[in-house]
Amino acid sequence: MTRSVPHGQTRHQVHHGARSVADHAAAVRDLLSGMAAADRIETLPLSAALGRGLALSIDAPVSLPPFANSQMDGYAVRSGDLPGDGADLRIMLPVPAGSTPRPLEPGTAAPIMTGAMIPAGADAVVPIEKAVPDHFLASGDGRAVTLPATAHGTYVRAAGSDIAAGEQALAAGTCLGPAQLGLLAALGIPEVPVYRAVTVLLVTTGDEVVEPGRPLPAGKIYDSNGTLLEAAMKQAGLTVRRSGISTDNPAELTALLRAQCQGADLIVTTGGVSKGAYEVVRQAMADQPVEFLHVAMQPGGPQGMGTFDGVPFLGFPGNPVSCLVSFEMFLRPALSALLGAPAARLPLRARLDLSGLAQPLTSPAPKHQVRRGSLQPDGTVRLEGGESSHLMHALAGSNVLVHVPAGVTELASGDEVEVWML
Amino acid sequence: MTRSVPHGQTRHQVHHGARSVADHAAAVRDLLSGMAAADRIETLPLSAALGRGLALSIDAPVSLPPFANSQMDGYAVRSGDLPGDGADLRIMLPVPAGSTPRPLEPGTAAPIMTGAMIPAGADAVVPIEKAVPDHFLASGDGRAVTLPATAHGTYVRAAGSDIAAGEQALAAGTCLGPAQLGLLAALGIPEVPVYRAVTVLLVTTGDEVVEPGRPLPAGKIYDSNGTLLEAAMKQAGLTVRRSGISTDNPAELTALLRAQCQGADLIVTTGGVSKGAYEVVRQAMADQPVEFLHVAMQPGGPQGMGTFDGVPFLGFPGNPVSCLVSFEMFLRPALSALLGAPAARLPLRARLDLSGLAQPLTSPAPKHQVRRGSLQPDGTVRLEGGESSHLMHALAGSNVLVHVPAGVTELASGDEVEVWML
Repeated sequence: MTRSVPHGQTRHQVHHGARSVADHAAAVRDLLSGMAAADRIETLPLSAALGRGLALSIDAPVSLPPFANSQMDGYAVRSGDLPGDGADLRIMLPVPAGSTPRPLEPGTAAPIMTGAMIPAGADAVVPIEKAVPDHFLASGDGRAVTLPATAHGTYVRAAGSDIAAGEQALAAGTCLGPAQLGLLAALGIPEVPVYRAVTVLLVTTGDEVVEPGRPLPAGKIYDSNGTLLEAAMKQAGLTVRRSGISTDNPAELTALLRAQCQGADLIVTTGGVSKGAYEVVRQAMADQPVEFLHVAMQPGGPQGMGTFDGVPFLGFPGNPVSCLVSFEMFLRPALSALLGAPAARLPLRARLDLSGLAQPLTSPAPKHQVRRGSLQPDGTVRLEGGESSHLMHALAGSNVLVHVPAGVTELASGDEVEVWML
Repeated sequence: MTRSVPHGQTRHQVHHGARSVADHAAAVRDLLSGMAAADRIETLPLSAALGRGLALSIDAPVSLPPFANSQMDGYAVRSGDLPGDGADLRIMLPVPAGSTPRPLEPGTAAPIMTGAMIPAGADAVVPIEKAVPDHFLASGDGRAVTLPATAHGTYVRAAGSDIAAGEQALAAGTCLGPAQLGLLAALGIPEVPVYRAVTVLLVTTGDEVVEPGRPLPAGKIYDSNGTLLEAAMKQAGLTVRRSGISTDNPAELTALLRAQCQGADLIVTTGGVSKGAYEVVRQAMADQPVEFLHVAMQPGGPQGMGTFDGVPFLGFPGNPVSCLVSFEMFLRPALSALLGAPAARLPLRARLDLSGLAQPLTSPAPKHQVRRGSLQPDGTVRLEGGESSHLMHALAGSNVLVHVPAGVTELASGDEVEVWML
């Protein structure tokens, strides 16, 4: 697919063939590789690390469980004392969780609570409901309990059965969710090395764009890109700085970027990257090492990337769906790969359900098309809206992105597609 | 499944049959129904509303798009001027996005940019790459362009084609993610009525439990429940207040709850709800309208619920996996149903892959078993760890909960199961 050089844009490097999605994703990852530099590692308490990427792998300093303990409320026993039909055993002092019990004498049973340490000598637990009587005695010490035959190891959680001291607990690059933070806490680790959050300067552009809440003159539209991308970025753990909306005057955009990019790790603009006659981002980047190119993707084909005054820069197209698709296809995967956070989208397979639609799903052969859909519990996915990139209402009714790879031109009901859950 | 009344707990109402998962979920929803009271609705700017539940449905105050506009950079034309082999048309002044163009005279073409208003009289857009010449002329006014035959409506986004003014844009109870907030912005709506965030007082209990970072005496374990649940709750949009760890002294727990529950909408404790001899939460709730019961679920069977000094209370069991399962099965769905946020887990179907495991998946017939697993891109799910509720490391390697409904006792490789993505 060859594109002509847009008028007035000859100073820029322009690709005469479209770049593949994979190649552009790799280029964005390269552009952002500095985010994973060693000097961007910080140590945070667990309560502040939710959603961050683990910068260094962590080995277990202790075993889990740290000691053999009971999986049930019941009686700790020596299994050899309970052959055949079981036996009556003399009841010893109870073992609460948190205590260090005395060794268990042969022929005795110790009341033991869930999580409590198995006494030396004991090798099994009989749950209280299998004992006669089937409840703990208020003052049981010295009385007898009738217990059934019980195999060695029954209801005993062996020390290290979840993880042994010295094993790797979490690999570098793990996204820290509740379970991963909970594991670190269980291991007694109170703080964790993570990558610093990425600060983004987010700039929407366009003479036609008006802030929500203001009156809407004829020919204008409200800015949805700013709200949409800010929310997607915050959800992904980025720190977002919003500029006001830039006009289509390149000098104004340049001044705005220069005034606000201090301390930002990344600049993201929307709009002004295409091949029209008024492409403010292209014009403002004329003297910067920025390339504007076409990715073989629909929507989200026109893209800009490079640096502005040394700050990494991504120029997304101006339509809201194109913006979100650009974020999900390029920025989010790059951060996932480099920092471990946000978590990568899990690709799932789903069967297309086109019932109610007049025609099959079609896609231009050279492009990777990204449609929006709603994944149903039965594993089918319905398309929400058409291929056009302005359909915000349809996007708001979607829960997945539906991928139609380059080379696929038509899909029918029942065909399998890859979807990414949003 | 009949359970005996634990010793010393006779003042409490205790269920002699286990409650079904569905019944307990409904009871928790009832307990929390006050969270959706009208006086808990607040109005937030879009940038502060991410992850909240929409309290009132919202109709579109304007159509999207607000006016017919171009889907491409190209020429706005009257399609009737381009029959058969096309025609040469005189080039008029260009139409940038954001402007209100003059009506298009017959026999002319107006350069138009993506998103710009279609001039009155025009009914189609010819993309620039189909024009001869295939780029915009620096001063094109009055010169001619050769354009191919073009059907009525081509590359025109009709006013209201995404949503028409007056239609419902978002239903009450919608969880506000990036796309939903983006839609509101596109509609010009700057703020939104949402339910107030729920504030939880989270209390972990147990003489055996030690804060991460402190030395670990013999017989003790580190507190992972607090970190795990705090993170899960924060991820779900709750405001979490952590108390210190309570000992197994009921008077101490009561004093701690009384000192810290002011302003909390909900108290959640972990541990001390089972049938052992030292159940601090049961004991501390002795004079409160709280019931302790057994849900037919594994893990997470023992549960407490009611109110403490009038504040809704949920008592989760003491093992970390049980805590997370309790949160995902009862608290999260109740908030989703009442407030629209957090979003409900989407149930998916997956085929079990038990390769590498010595035995099939087994589950006690009367119980709904919740296993942890990792969903693979090919639609299979592998179990992570066994059924035991202390396996934090296995949980940290999981991305789904695997449901084995009551009545199902054995599943083999290839069997289909319901999974919830974490």
